[in-house]
Amino acid sequence: MCPRSHRAASAIDGTDMTITYIGGGSRQWAPKFVRDMALSELDGEVRLYDANYEGAALNARFGNWVQDEHETSGEWTYEAVDALDAALEGADAVITSTQFDPTETFVHDIDIPQKYGIHGPVAATIGPGGIFRAMRTIPLYREFAAAIREHCPDAWVFNFTNPVHFVTRALYDEYPDINAVGLCHEVMGTRSYLASLASEQLDMEATREDITCNVKGINHFTWIDEARCQGVDLWPLFEDFVDAEEANRVFEPAALEDESVFVDNQQVTWELFRRFGIFPAAGDRHLVEYATWFLNGSDADLERWGITYTGSDYRSKHWTPAESEQTTDVTAWLEGDREFELESSEEVFADMLEALAGGESFTTNVNMPNVGQVSDLEDGAVVETNALVRENEIRPLAAGGFPRQVRSLITTHVDTIETIVEAARTDDVDEAFAGFLLDPQVRTLQTERARELFAELVAAEERYLTDWDLDGSAVLSESSAYDSSH
Amino acid sequence: MCPRSHRAASAIDGTDMTITYIGGGSRQWAPKFVRDMALSELDGEVRLYDANYEGAALNARFGNWVQDEHETSGEWTYEAVDALDAALEGADAVITSTQFDPTETFVHDIDIPQKYGIHGPVAATIGPGGIFRAMRTIPLYREFAAAIREHCPDAWVFNFTNPVHFVTRALYDEYPDINAVGLCHEVMGTRSYLASLASEQLDMEATREDITCNVKGINHFTWIDEARCQGVDLWPLFEDFVDAEEANRVFEPAALEDESVFVDNQQVTWELFRRFGIFPAAGDRHLVEYATWFLNGSDADLERWGITYTGSDYRSKHWTPAESEQTTDVTAWLEGDREFELESSEEVFADMLEALAGGESFTTNVNMPNVGQVSDLEDGAVVETNALVRENEIRPLAAGGFPRQVRSLITTHVDTIETIVEAARTDDVDEAFAGFLLDPQVRTLQTERARELFAELVAAEERYLTDWDLDGSAVLSESSAYDSSH
Amino acid sequence: MCPRSHRAASAIDGTDMTITYIGGGSRQWAPKFVRDMALSELDGEVRLYDANYEGAALNARFGNWVQDEHETSGEWTYEAVDALDAALEGADAVITSTQFDPTETFVHDIDIPQKYGIHGPVAATIGPGGIFRAMRTIPLYREFAAAIREHCPDAWVFNFTNPVHFVTRALYDEYPDINAVGLCHEVMGTRSYLASLASEQLDMEATREDITCNVKGINHFTWIDEARCQGVDLWPLFEDFVDAEEANRVFEPAALEDESVFVDNQQVTWELFRRFGIFPAAGDRHLVEYATWFLNGSDADLERWGITYTGSDYRSKHWTPAESEQTTDVTAWLEGDREFELESSEEVFADMLEALAGGESFTTNVNMPNVGQVSDLEDGAVVETNALVRENEIRPLAAGGFPRQVRSLITTHVDTIETIVEAARTDDVDEAFAGFLLDPQVRTLQTERARELFAELVAAEERYLTDWDLDGSAVLSESSAYDSSH
Amino acid sequence: MCPRSHRAASAIDGTDMTITYIGGGSRQWAPKFVRDMALSELDGEVRLYDANYEGAALNARFGNWVQDEHETSGEWTYEAVDALDAALEGADAVITSTQFDPTETFVHDIDIPQKYGIHGPVAATIGPGGIFRAMRTIPLYREFAAAIREHCPDAWVFNFTNPVHFVTRALYDEYPDINAVGLCHEVMGTRSYLASLASEQLDMEATREDITCNVKGINHFTWIDEARCQGVDLWPLFEDFVDAEEANRVFEPAALEDESVFVDNQQVTWELFRRFGIFPAAGDRHLVEYATWFLNGSDADLERWGITYTGSDYRSKHWTPAESEQTTDVTAWLEGDREFELESSEEVFADMLEALAGGESFTTNVNMPNVGQVSDLEDGAVVETNALVRENEIRPLAAGGFPRQVRSLITTHVDTIETIVEAARTDDVDEAFAGFLLDPQVRTLQTERARELFAELVAAEERYLTDWDLDGSAVLSESSAYDSSH
Repeated sequence: MCPRSHRAASAIDGTDMTITYIGGGSRQWAPKFVRDMALSELDGEVRLYDANYEGAALNARFGNWVQDEHETSGEWTYEAVDALDAALEGADAVITSTQFDPTETFVHDIDIPQKYGIHGPVAATIGPGGIFRAMRTIPLYREFAAAIREHCPDAWVFNFTNPVHFVTRALYDEYPDINAVGLCHEVMGTRSYLASLASEQLDMEATREDITCNVKGINHFTWIDEARCQGVDLWPLFEDFVDAEEANRVFEPAALEDESVFVDNQQVTWELFRRFGIFPAAGDRHLVEYATWFLNGSDADLERWGITYTGSDYRSKHWTPAESEQTTDVTAWLEGDREFELESSEEVFADMLEALAGGESFTTNVNMPNVGQVSDLEDGAVVETNALVRENEIRPLAAGGFPRQVRSLITTHVDTIETIVEAARTDDVDEAFAGFLLDPQVRTLQTERARELFAELVAAEERYLTDWDLDGSAVLSESSAYDSSH
Repeated sequence: MCPRSHRAASAIDGTDMTITYIGGGSRQWAPKFVRDMALSELDGEVRLYDANYEGAALNARFGNWVQDEHETSGEWTYEAVDALDAALEGADAVITSTQFDPTETFVHDIDIPQKYGIHGPVAATIGPGGIFRAMRTIPLYREFAAAIREHCPDAWVFNFTNPVHFVTRALYDEYPDINAVGLCHEVMGTRSYLASLASEQLDMEATREDITCNVKGINHFTWIDEARCQGVDLWPLFEDFVDAEEANRVFEPAALEDESVFVDNQQVTWELFRRFGIFPAAGDRHLVEYATWFLNGSDADLERWGITYTGSDYRSKHWTPAESEQTTDVTAWLEGDREFELESSEEVFADMLEALAGGESFTTNVNMPNVGQVSDLEDGAVVETNALVRENEIRPLAAGGFPRQVRSLITTHVDTIETIVEAARTDDVDEAFAGFLLDPQVRTLQTERARELFAELVAAEERYLTDWDLDGSAVLSESSAYDSSH
Repeated sequence: MCPRSHRAASAIDGTDMTITYIGGGSRQWAPKFVRDMALSELDGEVRLYDANYEGAALNARFGNWVQDEHETSGEWTYEAVDALDAALEGADAVITSTQFDPTETFVHDIDIPQKYGIHGPVAATIGPGGIFRAMRTIPLYREFAAAIREHCPDAWVFNFTNPVHFVTRALYDEYPDINAVGLCHEVMGTRSYLASLASEQLDMEATREDITCNVKGINHFTWIDEARCQGVDLWPLFEDFVDAEEANRVFEPAALEDESVFVDNQQVTWELFRRFGIFPAAGDRHLVEYATWFLNGSDADLERWGITYTGSDYRSKHWTPAESEQTTDVTAWLEGDREFELESSEEVFADMLEALAGGESFTTNVNMPNVGQVSDLEDGAVVETNALVRENEIRPLAAGGFPRQVRSLITTHVDTIETIVEAARTDDVDEAFAGFLLDPQVRTLQTERARELFAELVAAEERYLTDWDLDGSAVLSESSAYDSSH
Repeated sequence: MCPRSHRAASAIDGTDMTITYIGGGSRQWAPKFVRDMALSELDGEVRLYDANYEGAALNARFGNWVQDEHETSGEWTYEAVDALDAALEGADAVITSTQFDPTETFVHDIDIPQKYGIHGPVAATIGPGGIFRAMRTIPLYREFAAAIREHCPDAWVFNFTNPVHFVTRALYDEYPDINAVGLCHEVMGTRSYLASLASEQLDMEATREDITCNVKGINHFTWIDEARCQGVDLWPLFEDFVDAEEANRVFEPAALEDESVFVDNQQVTWELFRRFGIFPAAGDRHLVEYATWFLNGSDADLERWGITYTGSDYRSKHWTPAESEQTTDVTAWLEGDREFELESSEEVFADMLEALAGGESFTTNVNMPNVGQVSDLEDGAVVETNALVRENEIRPLAAGGFPRQVRSLITTHVDTIETIVEAARTDDVDEAFAGFLLDPQVRTLQTERARELFAELVAAEERYLTDWDLDGSAVLSESSAYDSSH
């Protein structure tokens, strides 16, 4: 009768741990992971699983090289495993960080909506591109969740795959007792920004770790209603600074030409704080895809806020194996073409694993199903808040609720996410389209244009949507009365 | 300890009733009212109160003329009263149906947003125009509610003034024990349409009265999830008809040129049913201002659905006393220039009054604060559902909830309405602006453009916004960084 | 996506109706039913089904005799059917009014708890006896619901079997789309009492029909927070009368000796009104089993409120076929030993059927799953409120919520009911015991005594609890540490 | 618009702290406090305020003596202050730990209900005695809260005064922005018990600190649904142990004769776990006053669970200054009659203060208003869960909800507490009586007996209930119809 958490009988043994890394052929995140493990106080084995077995094998070689050739505190062995079941069997922890569908899908996610006037700077976690990425990813992750239920039901699962809210939600939808968290950097970025702000404006010497804040929302659309730097309330600073010139800048597109796609000038952040009295905790490029006023108008109207676009060319350039710098790195390191330094990343994953194994407990932001930590979003929706991580437990902190206006902005996205996840349960394309229509970026279109966009995205990415019942869809079989008349 | 309804000790005495008509100088609704009263089974006196005393006096003369010169079942005397307090003292029923602010405000409500690309076909109950109409009207209605509390706390209050949801909500916000309902025709229009549909498609002989349905939502954005004609379920018909040619028409703007602004071709209705599986119960011209996909693009993109615009010239023409046909009518009737027929309107007001006085009980749609009748909208929000009207009681029927996607569309508007009403409590313009920003029509603008639109509307209508703390507003005092840079 | 009610395509055809009467061998209710049908405006056939086929056949003979030998407005034929499936096939309406388990079980329900000091005056709808009656009845009603789903999914189902809340809830638990209502007289009794009160105290000439009230709660524990007689608010009367001598009477047990077990002196009613400011709408003998203060102390302490006990001897006397007066009636009528008069009962069943078939709509109290009609009880719990009955529809009225203290009293019982129904889903005796423990009558025992009582009731009624997993129960296999020590 | 926590601009300065101790004349807790402060890493001044100024002065002398004569890490000065306002002005932290009303009231709390058959083993935090203690205490604490709002609105307030739930709730009712927590040892006792259980049964070497658990409920009626010892899940142990002899013991009253009133044999704990599948986290003597089955029957029926009674003689003996050992202690120490050792208590107060001042963060159980930490109890009710304590912040952990049956037990008490606190807002004795009636101990009486008990308690303690509107009470002015007839 008692709805307890499902959890392993004892904490992970930090001296003999088995970690399964789904997506272990990764070129970006795997090298960070290998180094963090090497610098941890933990020992064990890592099984790298990837649709791209070569990548996994390369990372395994790299992992073992790091262990063999360097002074490490953690003792680890790496192995590439080509069967998911074998990779998961008896695992203590599972990392999911994949991108199986090829780069071309991301190009479609950006380029096709743009033809319809929807030009998001990221287009990967919400909006039409984000929703299609979710539709491609969710069926696979339901399979992962089912395999975890079978082979390692107690394992701690760390999901890094975007869109984090959709994907983490889908894991729980398939296997409600899964011990999964979604992890993401955005809030840490905000904490770093607040540390620099406090340093500049309040003459403090502060780093990210000095900032504590009460985070809540959904991934990439999180908010802070309390922030302190070394215990000092930052709210009075916010209320002053919002009127300062630095919080009221207008950018000329030309000024951004040489900027990275990741540049963040915080102008949207301050504008939202100005309007709603609560502080956004995600980069501006993400915020504008959720609080969509800023996407209206021309590209210059977005760039005016200091935001640049992730061009689809950027994606194809950076995400194609051949040209990826990350790949080069690992090989270069292994072949001695480049000097390797064993330094830790900013990831909290290793710290979480240590805490779960009985090491020092700490607090960090995680994405988990709502059990009350956000009091005015619905139960079960995957929300992001701080959580206490300690021996055999990750427990969210009670973060309270929102000003009505911000809750309103968030629930729209929760409604989209829940609709898509529910639609995936029965592969129901038409229900997915109803969720697609709710997205505020899509709401700038006529419903018929939205249907055409949806159908065009399906057509372009059909190969990666095979789990969906495309044939049974009424939406996809509609002729376009609208087009014929225009 | 028991939260009972506040209610008069006994039902209204149908043989000696006092009705106060706030807005009694009305040219449109008053003549209907006079005739319905004359044809009712009720007797009593009517006090007509209006900022425009002349209008009230004319209507009083007309009312008494109808009573004196015609065969009436109800015996009524009419009097124009020029003090609100005296008009309300001891009243059994109060009608509120006013438009004190002059036509120019409506012209602004339409024309100013249009300059910013927001072109709603009605622009009077939601969207920037509707919100400003609410902001002009709410303070006055708070005064009415306060006067009712003082002079006739038990009276039944029938509000016909738009925006019905904002205004009715404001009455309750000022005087929570008020016995007020907001009344509107839209749902009856849908029932008439369904009667004609059933007649044509199912070979029934049906009129509006044959249609029963389960209505729910907010005014002008109501939905039906059960509809029967003489007990026959219409859902199978809906599911067929939605694929028929008649439900998939595309209009050329030229084809609408001679159409009334009130023309309704139901194409938006069917499109929404197609997408969300629940049937809208309001005219298309209202629906598109709440489900805003249809406003996107050019005017032709809206007209393609068979909808025309209420031009601001139409408003100034029709709503200016000098040219109003309604005014002419009363005078013409009185002077014998036009033949007068004593026939009943389609209003349910007289029926409600009879039922409250102990006559036949019946069911009709009303706008009242939510006490559970809509299970998934918040308590206290003014929602529209069916209600049972009987002796001394108007009680909503439990209408249940919504498909998630439609609930999502509605709650956004509830959030705007609640924000504006709450802002009015403290005359807080900046909070009102936060509510303004939430409106989906406004969300097609950059926040700065939205601010400029808001400020321009305030400037144009300042005279009618004197209750608001315009001077204390940060939003209104912002300089426009944006403009200066574009 | 749209959660509509499940309902027949068209209203019941009033000229050709099929009614299935489960429990049609009834001696009490069937004769009323036959007469009401004969006096209705409806025609059709009735299939009488009963575990006791003889009783059904007798009632069929009686029904046809009434039709043949008397002047009836409704034309009906009666048939006893001995297979449930055949009886239900294609039915328009189903009545469930059974008591399959024999009288001895009721004797146990009363006598065994009394040995433990629990002496409820009725012991049939709540408390240990009521819970066991529910445990015996629910499995059977789950079978009925399953058969209805298969053979007449659209039928309107009228449940008269006690405990109405448990049983109606179980019907919905098995078949969520069932169109079922639970019906009961208690509220009508209260309305009759209020009519007599208004007649005496306010010099009105009033009957039950003149009383309108806002009812809410659970069956046998309903409350009224608005009551009017011919539109006149009765609250001021209540507030006076509660201090009058008539509302503060103390009874000597001797004074009740000749009273019927159904006598109701309303002293508990007034005491509860005095304490909580809201008016109970059930007989005192039921109220005290839900608001259990009154059961404390000796029998005289209950009788002091003017309440008598239903002795188990009464039950065996009245409910044993051989001695039942009702049986005598039918046979006596048929055989001409007694004069038969065709007069209507006070049941609303026939009126409901007429309304559902398109006749006059009206409002009456029904037990249905909560969809918002009671705003502060949980969704899905079977609650009792007024409902509008009209063509093809029974829709609850929104009745609002409770004073906190009364809500608290009610939710305890809802928790018991929900626990028992949920336990029945998996035949889990131990979970049922957890629900049993919650009952306030049971809470007057030590948990171990409660366990012994539970085990003794199971042992005595085992034959009627065969659906439950008695063997798998930990509770039933516990040895009694307590007893051995006392 | 943003509902942020109210909080000081910066964390407490650990080198210059001002602590106000209301109830600083305490004989029990003050000496612990003085030693913990002396052993802390914090410096500052302490202002001792007490209705009994002598006691405060003695403790001040003691505090300064400890500082002067011993090696302390924290540097503190102590001062007795005789005006509340002056004592609070500018304080960083406030301790409330008072018992102003004299021992006789506690004697009444125990003895008077016992005359009515209600014999709680503690009678101080719930049940008739607990409710009257609350009624005496709440008005005073509303004054404290008002004074804190005026003189030190940002202070952290630590309430140790019983009944902790009533009192902490009243602080928030008066001053919603107060930074108050209620603190209590019970959960720590459970953790100690679990440590010893794990040590014995699992061969671990464990102390209280090794036990982590997910606590939730209300003070003295908290529950655990996850418990680990050094990361090892204790649930399998619970499920075994509940059947062991040690968890099924029956005590003879004689065996308890020499036991302390605080003896805890955990038999109620295991019985509740057995019945509801969730583990209680409070001492048995408290549990039985909330889960009242165990109070039924004779005293032997309670003692059978290994529980003894706090006799009112114990209370008068221990709580009278003259005989108090604690008083003796301080004086004895000061005068050298007894050796003083500077050792830390088990209180977490000093740790909390250090964490709030920027020291090490940690997790402990606290009583705070519900903002979602318990997902199925109402918002605003004071609930007990774990909380993270860190720089300038105390934030509850999201603990989730309850099995339905246990939630049901808890909400009854929440309803009593909320009713009493609300009644205190308007000094409404009759509303307080409605809350009194809800208490399950009181529900073992007839309502009239309950009224007599209530009236007798009021009469005995009238002097300490002067804030209540005793004269305006209908309940208190009722004559006893019941008595006269018995």
